[in-house]
Amino acid sequence: MLFFTQCFGAVLDLIHLRFQHYKAKRVFSAAGQLVCVVNPTHSLKYAPTRCAAAQTSVEQSVLPPCHHHEAVHDPQLVPCTCPLFSCPWEGHLEVVVSHLRQTHRINILQGAEIVFLATDMHLPAPTDWIIMHSCLGHQFLLVLRKQEKYEGHPQFFATMMLIGTPTQADNFTYRLELNRNQRRLKWEATPRSVLECVDSVISDGDCLVLNTSLAQLFSDNGSLAIGIAITTSKVHNAEAEM
Amino acid sequence: MLFFTQCFGAVLDLIHLRFQHYKAKRVFSAAGQLVCVVNPTHSLKYAPTRCAAAQTSVEQSVLPPCHHHEAVHDPQLVPCTCPLFSCPWEGHLEVVVSHLRQTHRINILQGAEIVFLATDMHLPAPTDWIIMHSCLGHQFLLVLRKQEKYEGHPQFFATMMLIGTPTQADNFTYRLELNRNQRRLKWEATPRSVLECVDSVISDGDCLVLNTSLAQLFSDNGSLAIGIAITTSKVHNAEAEM
Repeated sequence: MLFFTQCFGAVLDLIHLRFQHYKAKRVFSAAGQLVCVVNPTHSLKYAPTRCAAAQTSVEQSVLPPCHHHEAVHDPQLVPCTCPLFSCPWEGHLEVVVSHLRQTHRINILQGAEIVFLATDMHLPAPTDWIIMHSCLGHQFLLVLRKQEKYEGHPQFFATMMLIGTPTQADNFTYRLELNRNQRRLKWEATPRSVLECVDSVISDGDCLVLNTSLAQLFSDNGSLAIGIAITTSKVHNAEAEM
Repeated sequence: MLFFTQCFGAVLDLIHLRFQHYKAKRVFSAAGQLVCVVNPTHSLKYAPTRCAAAQTSVEQSVLPPCHHHEAVHDPQLVPCTCPLFSCPWEGHLEVVVSHLRQTHRINILQGAEIVFLATDMHLPAPTDWIIMHSCLGHQFLLVLRKQEKYEGHPQFFATMMLIGTPTQADNFTYRLELNRNQRRLKWEATPRSVLECVDSVISDGDCLVLNTSLAQLFSDNGSLAIGIAITTSKVHNAEAEM
């Protein structure tokens, strides 16, 4: 009987420990979540039918048409993937990240789950908010864009792209989450490859789309917080099966 | 030592049992999920600035302005809450459900989690898909509406309303989920009360909003499946705290 009592006590302790660990893990992941403040970049010159928007501060004023991987002369070279700038740079996929950091000063953040805090959401379209996200051994590009697909009706589009090939991108799932005022909006999808044009992803509407009214509901003091998480697709598929 | 081995075995068994139970519960809830096919109703007469849209089949042709609870002469009476019809009916909240079933032939479904399958998504705006959902001792009205807020740019709006007071509505959280082609979109919010006008909820954009392109991505053969789940707000708040 004494042993039975001890056994039962041990089981209860184990269950309690497991619960505490789970709770701590959840609380820790929330407390330790990295929040990144992302300032907007207003594209002074914007060509909606072209892939890239030019900034007046950039020396070259030529606007090249949308570059797809197929259009590059050396198939191992990719054009600059920064959706903000019209940049004639071409290079290997492996050096795209350092090009974006050094030339376009795009921040890179580490961590499985981060919070992207876009400021000044009231600024007129076209405006972009961009960061890079390093996770699971790969780098991703997060683009939030305010654009008027229909005149006088600005919308927000958010998407995540892998700085890698489409085959590599298929191995991942990204999640964007808005949570405020007892409302929650989640978008989960397979990231596109940066070899595809971010403009075509947005014009296809295959991303998180927010009307101005929804964006205002989720904004706090003109800033929009987007929770970002990246997982491997296997986990995602297993969940879907369950 | 023998007792220690037995203890360890019992713990392992408990963990295994718990896992099996969890797995079975998940599989069961997926397999037993009620799918409800909802046909569209095209509003032949539609007045965007008014609360209700008239149908030619309805005898009365008078379009009353948007009725709020405050506007009703007897404060205990509420106007007909069906967003499809211009109906002069007024009655107590307790009999709204039977009125909607009998007069407007709106189906009612039971179950904590159901799948709402809206057919013929290609039909031109304005079109509505409506069902009632009985859950947690209350009845909810689910409205999916295709509407052109901006001319030539139809959008889909989905919201859930409690057939009850705003105070009662605050106790619940509803979730609408779209899941197809490795994409997932979830909207969670507190339901509005049917004493508020569904048109104002949609014009405020405080609901799940889908562009035509997104609706197409989630549709299968012209039908859109929306998973619906309702929980009490306490559970939702506890999750948010964790």
